Formats: sequence, structure tokens, C-alpha cells
Amino acid sequence: MTITSKEIRLASRPGGMPTASNFELAEVEVPAPGDGEVLIKNTWMSVDPYMRGRMMDRKSYIPPFQVGQPLDGHAVGKVVASNNKDFAEGDLVLSMLGWRTHFISDGAGLQKLDTFGLPEQAFLGVAGMPGLTAWGGLLHIGQPKEGETVFVSGAAGAVGSLVCQIAKIKGCRVVGSAGSQEKCDWLKSVGVDEVINYKDHKDQAALINAFKAAAPEGIDVYFENVGGDHLVAALEAMNTNGRIVVCGMISVYNDTAPKPGPWNLFHVIAKSLRIEGFVVTAFMDRTPEFVKDLGEWFAAGKIQTQETVENGIENAPDAFLKLFSGGNKGKMLVKLD
Amino acid sequence: MTITSKEIRLASRPGGMPTASNFELAEVEVPAPGDGEVLIKNTWMSVDPYMRGRMMDRKSYIPPFQVGQPLDGHAVGKVVASNNKDFAEGDLVLSMLGWRTHFISDGAGLQKLDTFGLPEQAFLGVAGMPGLTAWGGLLHIGQPKEGETVFVSGAAGAVGSLVCQIAKIKGCRVVGSAGSQEKCDWLKSVGVDEVINYKDHKDQAALINAFKAAAPEGIDVYFENVGGDHLVAALEAMNTNGRIVVCGMISVYNDTAPKPGPWNLFHVIAKSLRIEGFVVTAFMDRTPEFVKDLGEWFAAGKIQTQETVENGIENAPDAFLKLFSGGNKGKMLVKLD
Repeated sequence: MTITSKEIRLASRPGGMPTASNFELAEVEVPAPGDGEVLIKNTWMSVDPYMRGRMMDRKSYIPPFQVGQPLDGHAVGKVVASNNKDFAEGDLVLSMLGWRTHFISDGAGLQKLDTFGLPEQAFLGVAGMPGLTAWGGLLHIGQPKEGETVFVSGAAGAVGSLVCQIAKIKGCRVVGSAGSQEKCDWLKSVGVDEVINYKDHKDQAALINAFKAAAPEGIDVYFENVGGDHLVAALEAMNTNGRIVVCGMISVYNDTAPKPGPWNLFHVIAKSLRIEGFVVTAFMDRTPEFVKDLGEWFAAGKIQTQETVENGIENAPDAFLKLFSGGNKGKMLVKLD
Repeated sequence: MTITSKEIRLASRPGGMPTASNFELAEVEVPAPGDGEVLIKNTWMSVDPYMRGRMMDRKSYIPPFQVGQPLDGHAVGKVVASNNKDFAEGDLVLSMLGWRTHFISDGAGLQKLDTFGLPEQAFLGVAGMPGLTAWGGLLHIGQPKEGETVFVSGAAGAVGSLVCQIAKIKGCRVVGSAGSQEKCDWLKSVGVDEVINYKDHKDQAALINAFKAAAPEGIDVYFENVGGDHLVAALEAMNTNGRIVVCGMISVYNDTAPKPGPWNLFHVIAKSLRIEGFVVTAFMDRTPEFVKDLGEWFAAGKIQTQETVENGIENAPDAFLKLFSGGNKGKMLVKLD
């Protein structure tokens, strides 16, 4: 018995903003699992901004995608056949083999999933990599203190929306920026103190004024998902001894030519700022702490999440592209079945 | 009895590179010290790059200089008359009242100087603010580990030359940049492993190549005194988990219009970099530690210093201006007597 798996391959490397033509849908035959192997049918897959970087042919913290090969990323799947004593038919598993409907594994890199009553796709979002990113970046790099002001750019995204809520739990005043009135309204509804629709502030000077008005006592921790003019505005509004946690810079990922950096970086000296970037793997060994915190916050009803779901593997490229046009509210997911 | 003190005032705020016309020499009558007061005759005064920032009318960590008023800054002087029981005639004192030949004080802000056998002007350099800046910035922010590569821009300056030598003491490979062959030769003579004369590398691409060639295993700690293209090149050459200590950015202090920042700041994410600025006051409470380290290093002959000396209060503006044209080797001082 063989099964046909559908997968999305990198057809060509995007130059600038990716388009549908950079992706291709292909079918491959997946054989029956051999001795020690399992056959997985993916049920959900994740698309994330960091995948844009992997589409470039450059050395980085994670190898680039290869043209003609399937993409990969986090996915949740179900064991449909097993010749491996560690996995039984029906088990849920987390893997890095997204962007395909089926695959064979010898179990390496598969993590059996106990959902603790959460929906399985939560492990691609709040209870997964984006959740650990928000928790580790804010608490261990940003180190907010009660009463401080935390500003979150890209606040309605998978990571940003958690950063906002964790900062509220820690007793901070929280300001967020997002790209639509609907996103801003949702952020207010989950307790964010002040929100900026950055599309209302077209030039840099206006954005600087908006940041200062939304954070009249200055910013102590700036959680960066956006870059560009957002970073310039933050540097103007930062308080002495402020911390800038650099999680992402989605505004520059599709640049085809180098864009000038912030002209006001000199503030790092007189304001004694710390600007620190990170990759989520830095917090892997703190996962138990993260899970404990998250469990308590969920039990107390302190965390709200949003999802945007596209259906079917053939729509995965479109889901990915929407990350760059603001088409997602909260975690962007692709449901496969 | 009154004494005539000569002082240098800010005649006008510089727009861009300061010139002699921004300064004026004036004379004021200093009365005999009253009850509880001392009369000080300055013997040495310091000129430092940070003073450029104080010439602008803006809020910062230290108040701006005022037009028509004397400048100030660190100075060493001698008590020539005293009606204060804490000070005797002949005592050496450190004060913030430089840029003048004489002044009256009630003792507040005066620090009696025990030179421990060092020349008195050392307390404006290696044993003073620049020394504490180098020690605190490198060891407490940069946190270099034995065997790591430390890159120091502006390496032949008062701060940079100490950073280089402290990094060598800590077992690091040290690379420095400076603006003349003579400065590079001196840096080599005090043990710096590799030096770049940045004037040999006119464009950004050439400077990036020079940084990479001088630090083939990458940079772990970059100590920034310069900014501009130097920072771009450092970002390209940094290793994962590298630290960028931002002490100064002398290349931008005289800009009249905002200059674009580094186009490659995005490296902070994938390389997990920390960029941290500071002001020397952050390390004031660690002065005893600093003095202990420095004493041991001097006793062991591990620290060499250079001075560039101008004579007379009337030449203080010229000494200050030379900081921006690379006219100083090591600490720039003005001898007053």
C-alpha cells in the first residue's frame, strides 16, 4: 500500500515580496512504514514570518530551504500506521515536517503530544514556538518590572498578542501597534491599555508623535516584531535604561536592497539602552517553566488567543503570503484534512 | 587680594564641526576665599568627545553648556589658599571645574587626590573617567571570555587604548582600528594583535573586508567609539551571541543632518546580538574595584599610556577640536600653569 502525499516545494527563491509563483504543489508516493517507522498524516501546519529568511540562500542559524525541495516547519499530525513501539495508531505528534500532508518517520524529531485539553493546533501557537518566543523574549530579555511601560509592535500577531497579555499579567502598562482598527479593537478587548493603528501615521514624524502620545511616561521595554520606522519611533520614546527586545523585523524581510537603519541609534549611549536579539532556541531548556506559567494563566482565564485558518495544503502559500500583508489575526494556521 | 582667572566660554553653539569661533577666552576677577572656602589653581584640564554633546541645547543625561557661560569638565588643581579645614594649601584636588585657571569652592564637588605615585594628570585619563569607562564598559558590559576576539574602534584614544590592553590582560585576541600608521604602530607595540588603519579602507565594502580579515574567527565583543561605517562592518563580522558595547560614536557627533543608521541591524536577530550603550556614571560605585585592578596592572607593568598635551588655557579649544580630526594619541590634555 502506498499513499499519495501532497507537498509544497520552493519553486524559486523570491526576490522581494514572495508570490504564488515561488511555490509549487507536488505529489509524492509515500510507501508503507518499514520496521521501526511510522506513517504520519498532518492535521495542522504553521506558517511563520521567519520562514522568509530561509528562502534566501545564505548562512544563518537554520539552513536555507532548497529550490525544488519541500519546505518545512512545525506541524501537528496523527499516527495512521506504526511499526515503532513508541508510537501507537491515533497518537498526536508534533514535528518539523509541515508543508506536506503525509510522511514516514523513524521517530527521530517526533514529539508525542499530550494536549492537556487544549486544541491540538495550540501547539503551533500559544503553547508552541510562538508562545515560547513571547514568554522568553519578554520575561528573560525584556525583564519588565511592575509598573513599567511595555510597547509591543506587531501586537496582534501570534507572538505580539501573547507578549501584550503576559506583560499585563506582570503588572505593566501595555501599548501595542497593529495595522487595522479591527486588530486594535481586539487588543483593547484583551486588556491592552493603548493601541496605535500604525496605518493612521504615514510618515516617521507622525509615528514618533503617536508613540510618545501612547506612552507619555516613555517606554521601558520595547518588543520589536516590525523594524523600520517603528524602531526609529521607539528609540525616540525610550526611557533611560530601556530594553529593546528584537524578535523580528517583518518590515524588512522582503527588501530587495538594503534600507537605511535608524538614524537615531545614538540614543543607546545617552539613554543607556540595551538592544538584544534572540532566536527561540535560546529558551528550549526553559520549556518546563514556560508550560507551567502558561497552564496557570490559561486556568485563570488570563490568556485569550486568536487564530486565522486557511484550509488545505494548496492554500498554504497563500496563508504564508498573508503574513506580510497583515492578513492574519493572531496565529496563522493551515488546516490539513 | 583678587586674582584674575582666565576661562573659556561657549560663544555660540556649533552647527556641525565646531570651530574656534564657537569659543571665547574671558577674564574674571576671583575674590579671596571666604570663610569655609578654598581657592584652586588648575594645573591640568581634560577635553573629551562627550563635551560635544553638551554644546547642543537638548535634554540628556547631563545638562547642556550655556552660551556665554564657561564650559566645564574634569580638572586637576592645587589649593593655593584655604579657609576650609578639609583642605590645606598645596593639596591636589580633582574637580568638574575645568576650562578655567582659578576658582573658588566651598569644597562641594572637590575630591582630594592621593596620586599613589602616579603623575597627577593620570587622574584625568587612565586613573580617571576614561579609565573607569574602559574598565566598566569592557568587563561589565562586554564580558569578554578568555580566547574570544575583542575589536576596539578608536583604539588609540584615551578609552580605546585601555580597552585594548585590559582585553589582552583577560586573555583575548585583540583587534583595533585607528586613523594613522603611527597610531597603529603604537597599538602593536603595546600588544594589540592586529590593527586596521581605517583610512586605508575608504568605502564600506572595503572596511567590511578589512574587519573580516583582521578577525577571521569573527568578533565576540565589539567596543564602539566611532559609529557609522565602523558599526556596519562590525555587524557583518560579529559572531553569534556577540556583544556590542556602545561607548561613543564620534563619527556622528558633528552631523548636521541625520545620517542613515546601519542597514544590517537585522543581524541582531539571527546572530542573537546584544547592543548596549552606557554612561560612565553607571560604574561610579565600582570605583574601588577599578582602582584595585588598575593598581595591580600598573605594578606589573601591563598598562602603557600615551598623552597628547597642549599648553595654556587659550589652547584648550584647539585641543578639543583635535579630538575630531584624530589629532590626539591617547589622552588629550591641556596643561595650565
